[in-house]
Amino acid sequence: MLVIGSGIGGAATAWHLAARGAEVVVADAARPGTATEAGAGIVSPWTSRWEDALYPLAAAAGRYYREFTAELADSSFEVVGGMIVSADDAELAEAQERLASRAADAPEIGEVRRLDPAQARELFPALAPGLGAVHLAGAGRVDGHLLRRALLSAAERRGAKFVEGEVAFRADGTVVSPDGPLEADSVVVAAGAWSRELLAPLGIDLPVTPHRGQISHFDLPDTDTDTAAWPVVLPRTSHYLLAFGGGRVVAGATREAESGFDYRVTVAGQREVLENALTVAPGLADATLTETRVGFRPGTPDGLPILGLLRPGLAVSTGFGAGGLTNAPFAGKLVAAMALGEDPGFDLSPFAPDRF
Amino acid sequence: MLVIGSGIGGAATAWHLAARGAEVVVADAARPGTATEAGAGIVSPWTSRWEDALYPLAAAAGRYYREFTAELADSSFEVVGGMIVSADDAELAEAQERLASRAADAPEIGEVRRLDPAQARELFPALAPGLGAVHLAGAGRVDGHLLRRALLSAAERRGAKFVEGEVAFRADGTVVSPDGPLEADSVVVAAGAWSRELLAPLGIDLPVTPHRGQISHFDLPDTDTDTAAWPVVLPRTSHYLLAFGGGRVVAGATREAESGFDYRVTVAGQREVLENALTVAPGLADATLTETRVGFRPGTPDGLPILGLLRPGLAVSTGFGAGGLTNAPFAGKLVAAMALGEDPGFDLSPFAPDRF
Amino acid sequence: MLVIGSGIGGAATAWHLAARGAEVVVADAARPGTATEAGAGIVSPWTSRWEDALYPLAAAAGRYYREFTAELADSSFEVVGGMIVSADDAELAEAQERLASRAADAPEIGEVRRLDPAQARELFPALAPGLGAVHLAGAGRVDGHLLRRALLSAAERRGAKFVEGEVAFRADGTVVSPDGPLEADSVVVAAGAWSRELLAPLGIDLPVTPHRGQISHFDLPDTDTDTAAWPVVLPRTSHYLLAFGGGRVVAGATREAESGFDYRVTVAGQREVLENALTVAPGLADATLTETRVGFRPGTPDGLPILGLLRPGLAVSTGFGAGGLTNAPFAGKLVAAMALGEDPGFDLSPFAPDRF
Amino acid sequence: MLVIGSGIGGAATAWHLAARGAEVVVADAARPGTATEAGAGIVSPWTSRWEDALYPLAAAAGRYYREFTAELADSSFEVVGGMIVSADDAELAEAQERLASRAADAPEIGEVRRLDPAQARELFPALAPGLGAVHLAGAGRVDGHLLRRALLSAAERRGAKFVEGEVAFRADGTVVSPDGPLEADSVVVAAGAWSRELLAPLGIDLPVTPHRGQISHFDLPDTDTDTAAWPVVLPRTSHYLLAFGGGRVVAGATREAESGFDYRVTVAGQREVLENALTVAPGLADATLTETRVGFRPGTPDGLPILGLLRPGLAVSTGFGAGGLTNAPFAGKLVAAMALGEDPGFDLSPFAPDRF
Repeated sequence: MLVIGSGIGGAATAWHLAARGAEVVVADAARPGTATEAGAGIVSPWTSRWEDALYPLAAAAGRYYREFTAELADSSFEVVGGMIVSADDAELAEAQERLASRAADAPEIGEVRRLDPAQARELFPALAPGLGAVHLAGAGRVDGHLLRRALLSAAERRGAKFVEGEVAFRADGTVVSPDGPLEADSVVVAAGAWSRELLAPLGIDLPVTPHRGQISHFDLPDTDTDTAAWPVVLPRTSHYLLAFGGGRVVAGATREAESGFDYRVTVAGQREVLENALTVAPGLADATLTETRVGFRPGTPDGLPILGLLRPGLAVSTGFGAGGLTNAPFAGKLVAAMALGEDPGFDLSPFAPDRF
Repeated sequence: MLVIGSGIGGAATAWHLAARGAEVVVADAARPGTATEAGAGIVSPWTSRWEDALYPLAAAAGRYYREFTAELADSSFEVVGGMIVSADDAELAEAQERLASRAADAPEIGEVRRLDPAQARELFPALAPGLGAVHLAGAGRVDGHLLRRALLSAAERRGAKFVEGEVAFRADGTVVSPDGPLEADSVVVAAGAWSRELLAPLGIDLPVTPHRGQISHFDLPDTDTDTAAWPVVLPRTSHYLLAFGGGRVVAGATREAESGFDYRVTVAGQREVLENALTVAPGLADATLTETRVGFRPGTPDGLPILGLLRPGLAVSTGFGAGGLTNAPFAGKLVAAMALGEDPGFDLSPFAPDRF
Repeated sequence: MLVIGSGIGGAATAWHLAARGAEVVVADAARPGTATEAGAGIVSPWTSRWEDALYPLAAAAGRYYREFTAELADSSFEVVGGMIVSADDAELAEAQERLASRAADAPEIGEVRRLDPAQARELFPALAPGLGAVHLAGAGRVDGHLLRRALLSAAERRGAKFVEGEVAFRADGTVVSPDGPLEADSVVVAAGAWSRELLAPLGIDLPVTPHRGQISHFDLPDTDTDTAAWPVVLPRTSHYLLAFGGGRVVAGATREAESGFDYRVTVAGQREVLENALTVAPGLADATLTETRVGFRPGTPDGLPILGLLRPGLAVSTGFGAGGLTNAPFAGKLVAAMALGEDPGFDLSPFAPDRF
Repeated sequence: MLVIGSGIGGAATAWHLAARGAEVVVADAARPGTATEAGAGIVSPWTSRWEDALYPLAAAAGRYYREFTAELADSSFEVVGGMIVSADDAELAEAQERLASRAADAPEIGEVRRLDPAQARELFPALAPGLGAVHLAGAGRVDGHLLRRALLSAAERRGAKFVEGEVAFRADGTVVSPDGPLEADSVVVAAGAWSRELLAPLGIDLPVTPHRGQISHFDLPDTDTDTAAWPVVLPRTSHYLLAFGGGRVVAGATREAESGFDYRVTVAGQREVLENALTVAPGLADATLTETRVGFRPGTPDGLPILGLLRPGLAVSTGFGAGGLTNAPFAGKLVAAMALGEDPGFDLSPFAPDRF
């Protein structure tokens, strides 16, 4: 069983396969710009506006997070609570209602409270004075880099092997690495935004394109504040805020669907990130801008992931867009089952690769 | 003759002293954040709103630029023309009038033309569509890093010696370096924003404070454009634009009078620079943000430099604020003369150190 | 009670003062290059060759580490074990003997074992094949950045206030900040390598000089290894290795006593760090070189810290050299007591400021 | 006529095509890690050990450099002289002999002189004391970034158009860009190390692989030295030294044939660059290490470039290895001729694409 790609999607799939006793080889090209490494992770599917097909998957993925990270005995994930913030009461009311309607099936949401601006600022002192919030206790943050390593280490302990370097399909379906052919009865493609070019030699045109995200890291100079306890902040845009310990705050992210693989931090992208961060949290004005990362999320035409079999012996798990850190671990479990010829126990038909 | 500091101010002074036959030692602490290294240089005093005391000095400095850089046989300075840009016709008319009134005494201004937005964009393609311009042929750009090295090399060729490391005054007026006392009959302090702390042990409180500037460098991806020919762009704020060859554009700068020596690129500072750059030149949106530098300009309470003798054998040349690359080379000539007991041939009384 | 400086030394002192009920103000200039921020922390005083005066302090500091970090409820410190590595059996025997002789008074050392090269590589897979080791279970690693923030947060919770910006003594002993005079009946100077210039206006010449350390951060590409469990590695030079989770390895450090405040990563310094790291651990060859930091440790002529009263109402805690992360928290406790007029309960006479 | 790739190879080809009146479109994916951007350029083919097939091409390319850069009116290339340095007299004698034997056909070599260590150090003050040199006046340095832009600007002035973004061949030979199909009667592939994957969909397996080079930039703190006049330094390894004005020195480069597209600065690679630089030029020890770049040179199995027609309407110009800045401009002229169905006037048979 060969897994191509070792971002969160590939790492989770490999771990599940190894856990079920499969002989697993993980191949990774170590390209820059993986979505996993760049991504700051908020795990809060219940606050999303995802509807229809995606929400059930995401809700199950949210539930699964506590379970599998406990199994990993890993500290990359932490439930810190989250706040939807807005100056518009109607918007907050709508968000609260959505959470209420979802809470019955998702006890992980935890307590939901409406906070006035003063209460919100008490939890996240950098917040703009006029913003109220809906706080949910169950939102979590995840460090993608650490989680990926934890998954790969766990896979290795269960016998997975690793191949470094770029691998490629030949037209006949075999896979070659820099050190020669790789034998595999079955392959899972989890190569994120690079999945399309990987599959091209097989005559398969998977409509996955890179959506660039520019994400900035700040360092708060006020060393007397314990940022590890700050909740994640979810405005009604793509621009979230996420604090870690040690004064580190992550502000993300642009969503640039037309970027191609353009690895640059751009003037307009950086401006957008800073503008949004300071609008929501002017208290970050004097923070140090320490770093801006670029990641390419795998986007699809309908915004849904691509999960399942492309043909016998060839599965795929990609297309998560900005939802990869939330959804890919659970998806990896399902795709691992399919690759082993088992019933995943979850309706994956909306995500079937042949839907396009 | 000891010169403390080797930014543009100190380097120019040392060069002049050496050129007049003085035995010169230059001491420099190589601190980060010098204004010279961070500064992008526009030499266009005639477009400034500087009045009264400062303009005559700056105008003479502008005239002097062609002369001394020719003498250095150096390529750090180039006359590329400049544009005052604005969407407000009245503002442009006022700027044109100011230039006209100054042109009689400053033929270096060169031809002055009013440009409509289309003409302005032809010269600087990234410019916002609605901005008209007043173009003056005589504006120049200077690379502070290269000019400083050229001045120091020229000083060395004329016999100047160099001491690396932090030097300090003792209360008795002697100067010590890490390698022991430095003998000097006469000292020129040109330590920029650090001049105050340098002079403190002498009981002298020079009111110079660090004004932070955050300055960003962009790289244009459109490799088919010859940016070396772009004129400098002067909006009616502190936020200029300056192009060099190879697609490099410099966008400056914040003016942060309360910063202290805080060496950080801040969230608000970076936002301000990008916001202003894109307002004036939206064509820079897709440029790469390659670097942001921090420099500390030496500011004074009245905005004028401090030039002259603090007491016999102790001269000072600092306090240039954002005008150092323009004014310091000429000031170095004048202060060198004073330090040698000669008449500088220019009225420096408005800049006298004892005016505070 | 005013504490000047908020590195580990100042932060610990402030926390102790606040814990004892003093009204504490902490002033910090946020200069770059603090030893605390740059330093990777190994807490293993028992393996040092420190003798005489320093060892008793360091041993007490090592004992104190478990106690005070437990009180902070902080995760910045972790006991991960350490290895003295060498190809020379005699050297290892000597190290083992030293540990044995110290173990009676320092049970924190934990189990001490001699490891053959294969055993050593099992614990730290990147190690050179020929190196044996003496392993002690009690060695710890500390993240200086996180520890400092934890101390400051704890101090704040106990009422400490914070002043940002550069403060200075006037000759009359009063202290001024950018916002005006600071009132304090008593002052503790904990300004690290900058303590000398801080005290100069008082006519006090504290012989503390900056010792530059260049420290590199590596990132291991083998994502299937759990580096969080690696022990710290202590060769018989200044060049240690320290792993954190997520594949991060820290290789330090140069000890440059003549550097002055020169904030640069130099060609020779970087070479020295890499050369030493690869000699000890050639398995790091393919790691990414992610960052090199520069820090200035406060060095003294006799290599001992300076702890105690300079005069009534003026205490000092600095001069820790490369031992600051280990020794400063405990020293902060002692100096806090002295500043409050209490008996520190530990013989600080070898560290008295007036010994020079 | 479509040129894919706009490094030196593609830019030169496009310029030549446009100069001959062809309608040219240049497509470039702006990938990081291009050899052109990372490469420091020494133009000194005569000192190489290249034999047989490559030397005649390289010698012609060296001759051509003066001609075409004059035509570009560009300042990216400068003849500064070069030194082969060695402590071994026999090695220097051999080098001098090689130059002498080549001088008859290559007057561009200029005067050739043997320098004793003192003379060599006078020209390049950072050199190791014991190294003698063979100096040739005709060696040049080139700034790859500036040269590429100059070629593209010149091509644009002659009518070339530009397409940004990744293009791909379809199996039927048509080319698609992010904005749709590109029409072209004829295509030149000049995509450097990426040429192989570009051609794969056509069933063509061009044996070009990425050879990583890690290249470091230093900044000399001795600001009183005029580095612009320093000759290039050519040891008998791949590790050259190259000075530019303003104290900038470039030290290159590793040659890592097995790297794949691995964009990382590695511990071993950085060590190799610094070790070699300091062995040859210990005077660089205190320089600042400002930056290390990674570039992927297109390598071939026999070390020769691949120039010519793959089939009618499809030409290729790549495989230059470390010699691209020297050889690609001339090769671009020849391949442009072939693509236009003309006789290139130079025997390209050793470089034919079908030789593998």
